[in-house]
Amino acid sequence: MIRLGIIGAGRIGQLHAHSVQKMADVTIVKISDPFIEKVKDQFIEFKDIDFVETYQEVLRDDSIDAILVCSPTSTHAEIIEAAANANKHIFCEKPVSPSVEETERVLKVVEKAGVFLQVGFNRRFDQDFSKMQQLVSEGAIGEPHILKITSRDPAAPPLQYVKQSGGLFFDMSIHDFDMARYMMNSEVIEVHTVGANLVEPYIKEAGDIDTAIITLKFENGAIGVIDNSRQAKYGYDQRVEMFGSRGALTCENVRETSVQLHTEQGSQGEPLKNFFLDRYAEAYTAELQAFLHSIETGAPLLCVGNDGLQAEKIARAAQQSLQENRPVRITEEG
Amino acid sequence: MIRLGIIGAGRIGQLHAHSVQKMADVTIVKISDPFIEKVKDQFIEFKDIDFVETYQEVLRDDSIDAILVCSPTSTHAEIIEAAANANKHIFCEKPVSPSVEETERVLKVVEKAGVFLQVGFNRRFDQDFSKMQQLVSEGAIGEPHILKITSRDPAAPPLQYVKQSGGLFFDMSIHDFDMARYMMNSEVIEVHTVGANLVEPYIKEAGDIDTAIITLKFENGAIGVIDNSRQAKYGYDQRVEMFGSRGALTCENVRETSVQLHTEQGSQGEPLKNFFLDRYAEAYTAELQAFLHSIETGAPLLCVGNDGLQAEKIARAAQQSLQENRPVRITEEG
Amino acid sequence: MIRLGIIGAGRIGQLHAHSVQKMADVTIVKISDPFIEKVKDQFIEFKDIDFVETYQEVLRDDSIDAILVCSPTSTHAEIIEAAANANKHIFCEKPVSPSVEETERVLKVVEKAGVFLQVGFNRRFDQDFSKMQQLVSEGAIGEPHILKITSRDPAAPPLQYVKQSGGLFFDMSIHDFDMARYMMNSEVIEVHTVGANLVEPYIKEAGDIDTAIITLKFENGAIGVIDNSRQAKYGYDQRVEMFGSRGALTCENVRETSVQLHTEQGSQGEPLKNFFLDRYAEAYTAELQAFLHSIETGAPLLCVGNDGLQAEKIARAAQQSLQENRPVRITEEG
Amino acid sequence: MIRLGIIGAGRIGQLHAHSVQKMADVTIVKISDPFIEKVKDQFIEFKDIDFVETYQEVLRDDSIDAILVCSPTSTHAEIIEAAANANKHIFCEKPVSPSVEETERVLKVVEKAGVFLQVGFNRRFDQDFSKMQQLVSEGAIGEPHILKITSRDPAAPPLQYVKQSGGLFFDMSIHDFDMARYMMNSEVIEVHTVGANLVEPYIKEAGDIDTAIITLKFENGAIGVIDNSRQAKYGYDQRVEMFGSRGALTCENVRETSVQLHTEQGSQGEPLKNFFLDRYAEAYTAELQAFLHSIETGAPLLCVGNDGLQAEKIARAAQQSLQENRPVRITEEG
Repeated sequence: MIRLGIIGAGRIGQLHAHSVQKMADVTIVKISDPFIEKVKDQFIEFKDIDFVETYQEVLRDDSIDAILVCSPTSTHAEIIEAAANANKHIFCEKPVSPSVEETERVLKVVEKAGVFLQVGFNRRFDQDFSKMQQLVSEGAIGEPHILKITSRDPAAPPLQYVKQSGGLFFDMSIHDFDMARYMMNSEVIEVHTVGANLVEPYIKEAGDIDTAIITLKFENGAIGVIDNSRQAKYGYDQRVEMFGSRGALTCENVRETSVQLHTEQGSQGEPLKNFFLDRYAEAYTAELQAFLHSIETGAPLLCVGNDGLQAEKIARAAQQSLQENRPVRITEEG
Repeated sequence: MIRLGIIGAGRIGQLHAHSVQKMADVTIVKISDPFIEKVKDQFIEFKDIDFVETYQEVLRDDSIDAILVCSPTSTHAEIIEAAANANKHIFCEKPVSPSVEETERVLKVVEKAGVFLQVGFNRRFDQDFSKMQQLVSEGAIGEPHILKITSRDPAAPPLQYVKQSGGLFFDMSIHDFDMARYMMNSEVIEVHTVGANLVEPYIKEAGDIDTAIITLKFENGAIGVIDNSRQAKYGYDQRVEMFGSRGALTCENVRETSVQLHTEQGSQGEPLKNFFLDRYAEAYTAELQAFLHSIETGAPLLCVGNDGLQAEKIARAAQQSLQENRPVRITEEG
Repeated sequence: MIRLGIIGAGRIGQLHAHSVQKMADVTIVKISDPFIEKVKDQFIEFKDIDFVETYQEVLRDDSIDAILVCSPTSTHAEIIEAAANANKHIFCEKPVSPSVEETERVLKVVEKAGVFLQVGFNRRFDQDFSKMQQLVSEGAIGEPHILKITSRDPAAPPLQYVKQSGGLFFDMSIHDFDMARYMMNSEVIEVHTVGANLVEPYIKEAGDIDTAIITLKFENGAIGVIDNSRQAKYGYDQRVEMFGSRGALTCENVRETSVQLHTEQGSQGEPLKNFFLDRYAEAYTAELQAFLHSIETGAPLLCVGNDGLQAEKIARAAQQSLQENRPVRITEEG
Repeated sequence: MIRLGIIGAGRIGQLHAHSVQKMADVTIVKISDPFIEKVKDQFIEFKDIDFVETYQEVLRDDSIDAILVCSPTSTHAEIIEAAANANKHIFCEKPVSPSVEETERVLKVVEKAGVFLQVGFNRRFDQDFSKMQQLVSEGAIGEPHILKITSRDPAAPPLQYVKQSGGLFFDMSIHDFDMARYMMNSEVIEVHTVGANLVEPYIKEAGDIDTAIITLKFENGAIGVIDNSRQAKYGYDQRVEMFGSRGALTCENVRETSVQLHTEQGSQGEPLKNFFLDRYAEAYTAELQAFLHSIETGAPLLCVGNDGLQAEKIARAAQQSLQENRPVRITEEG
């Protein structure tokens, strides 16, 4: 029986708690949140959980094996470091920290402590993308030539969110940067970005962009492109395509149902799943199961601290490319 | 150079004339129609065509090798007989005649004369259905078990048409009966029909049905089902499915374009091709090319008089099954 | 907190137990099975469950509110009757009993007892089919004209299963009969069946068929057709199509993933979900949730005893139609 | 009756000749080719055509209204200039010339002469892309944000072709540059390119690339991306996607047929149409019809000399971007 602590009881903390509840051999011991009194009600069906205000109280509990870090990004580094020193295994939502340097620093602490650190790139655990990655690895398309990722959110986040998000690349594209490395099984070496403000004026005012095309060069010689938008009116558009010497792999978006209505106006398919928690519901469960499996068996994690670091480095290069309107090498100092 | 005569200058006669115009090594010599003066204008881009009023004038022209019979169904038998006796090859629109007995009689005349008679079951020449038939023949699905044909017209014909159509089975389902034999490569031995009047009251008043499900037993032990409607608001619905011991074959309807519009309402595909002349435009050309090819080379026809006869026998049995609400063997006397 | 008893600890009993485990406000109190010692291990992660050998022990427990009947079909009637008399709500796997008369008898007992009886037609709770049904109810296709159900199992059951299954219509088509009534929202009044033995000789030797086309007439004037096969090599083929005066509704089969591989051989899509427990995993959970919801709130059940009875009547008529090769009215005595 | 001359009797000249043959109100008077004796046989079904060796003989024929320039790219400018001075309308295959400056020069001659010059960007006349463009123009997706073009040839051209092709951008991507301007209805202002040699070593040896991702900035603020490959093993991959403030438009590749084979291995769709002359057969006819229609009626051309020029400018900028690994403005001197 693995004993868990959850740090941060907001939306994502609640999601993970409910996933854990359906799993055998694992129990949630403590949940901390500075506003724990306000969110306690979200956990009424959990019995025997201890609600506390500070993450330190969680880490002090010697019965706890592992923690899920679901607090704001700005607190991740501090918590990871403390957890590693308290000898807890760590599952941390992306990104590891808002700065490449800080991430590098805490990864060293984690390494030294010898605990597991899994980063929450949940899309690696999506059944479509993991199947595609498996087929690429097996050589189904031969040598990879071109990677294409379409990743568009259904609606722009509010100004408040944009301001503290770290920007499009750190907040949203970072998932795609990880997907790119995962699919290609090769490091990104150069990035070029074009961006635009086409969705909401307040995003521009906050100093961020809402639309982007990001070109990637990989170490293995292949090339790739990501396109992002903060607002796809037709839903949460999540597609990946791998093209290679022997063929290509594609996948479709996930819809509410597969029902089609055929009338004089044509054939109408159902809307896409519109919300990331719906679209990736199974992936969120699968990533936790993988984390717990590694703790139980010692099996290697499928998404480690370095994966978080590399994605952050690409995000930083993308940001610099946008500002200076030129291709930027990942190895350049930020 | 094959020299053609066309008998009947209405919609289908015009269609075939324009198809022929685009082919090499064939020329239209004479076109007959009782109302030839009224429709002559439809042929203005044809040079050197002789317009006449009676089919006899066409048949008397010794320079003519073959004729296309595009006149009303009630005239087919007489014209085929006369053409066979005049030693012309014959392409005849379906059905061969409104009565199984009459069809049997003229087929004997044709056989004796030794001329080619091709019946206009154009769907055999559609690229989707002919590919499917080829795959069935090659054993792609193993032994055939179940055939399914969906065949729905986009809009009910006017009362005038319904009255002289010979009824749903002889007018519309007859194409599906031929498709069933073509796909299954086996004869139908028993038919059961349920019908309904759900589309237009005037069809019922004219003594016909507008909606039907027709169950078929084949000589090879397989079974099949056809569903028909006179009115599919979303367009001309034409689908065939073959299911067998090793798998299944399906095909999709043909749309105006493949463009999809994705909005908050979902994903909207283009309407189906709505008119049989659009949907089967290439099949109409292909059936004529096959006919001309057989004349030139002596190669066996792909759709002969007996195919017309068998489809008519199934139509007759379907009609009887509907009237008597029982399964009817094809070998029963009508 | 609803307290449940489960009668029958085989595959389907285990499935329901695991579904219940993930739900709040419900707990499993007792599980009975004649061979309970053999299957107990399947429930190791359940705490505080009482394992017993006879259903009577479950029914005697006054703390239990409702039971799930997951035992062999031949035991259903007796258990339902006893449970109704013990004032328990009942969820029973289909069919209610192997005979229309027995079903009619126990439904009277249930009615008199005033307990809930839900029949396990899980497909009503599938997201595709329930969405389609909702759209039909809302008039999206106007008046219904033609219903089409394709329902093919991935692999023929073993001889042992066939022998005690009650035959194709009672074992397999019965789901489609219920789907027909559910979609059409109208009673079936006449059935005609063609059947064939094309899959496995032992099915014929057991006196059953493996392939069927079943034509239906509905009280509302619409018509329908079901095709069944015991063996679709490409997977568990489950499709429903509703055609009406204003349009049509279709849905697609559910695949393992949406990944497509494009090579010189063409484009390869993933196999269909191959097993009914995978294909309908969510529907199995949803039907239990609906049952529990009705117990809690008194809301009407979505699938009641009469739904079981009507489906059995259609199955009986289909059987008779096959034997006598004629259409059979549902109201005819069996 | 429009009287045509064709200059260049190779593959594309033959294609256009056969398209013209099927049209009313137009006749081919002369065909010139330096090797006319060798290719004459390709035109045996044409009557009354005069075969000559030099384009000057075509231009000297005062009865000719318009010419189709189907000769090698290096000869285009000279022929266009001479034809304009001879007061012939001109249809010219892309590109207008191998150099932006030369193209600019001949466009001035054409303008002064007041003749029509249509450039052979046939894809504008494809039914899928023209429908998509129409929907964009009508505001179906609101304001355009992101354009995506996938354009991959089925097989790499031979070394000989690569050497004289002008390079990937001038030979292949130029179609996509025109498509980008056509769809977006806005000029490209900046280009960034990443390229790779992944397909055939001889392409690298010839100083060209075989794989590319090209990012575009448009005057209207939107952004776009094109990906090209010389070798898509699964066929001729031609897709366009437009994403905007209210939704998106996509289209599918064109397959040989829509037949799907479903077996234990999954569902197999037919290969893509593999050859540009098949894929765009109807577009080749439609562009000629549009050209002839403009000559007859004076209606504006749908693809003019400036469209050729702008595409060449983008190609030049793409080339420069690749060489210098930086974004290049279209207005920069080449």
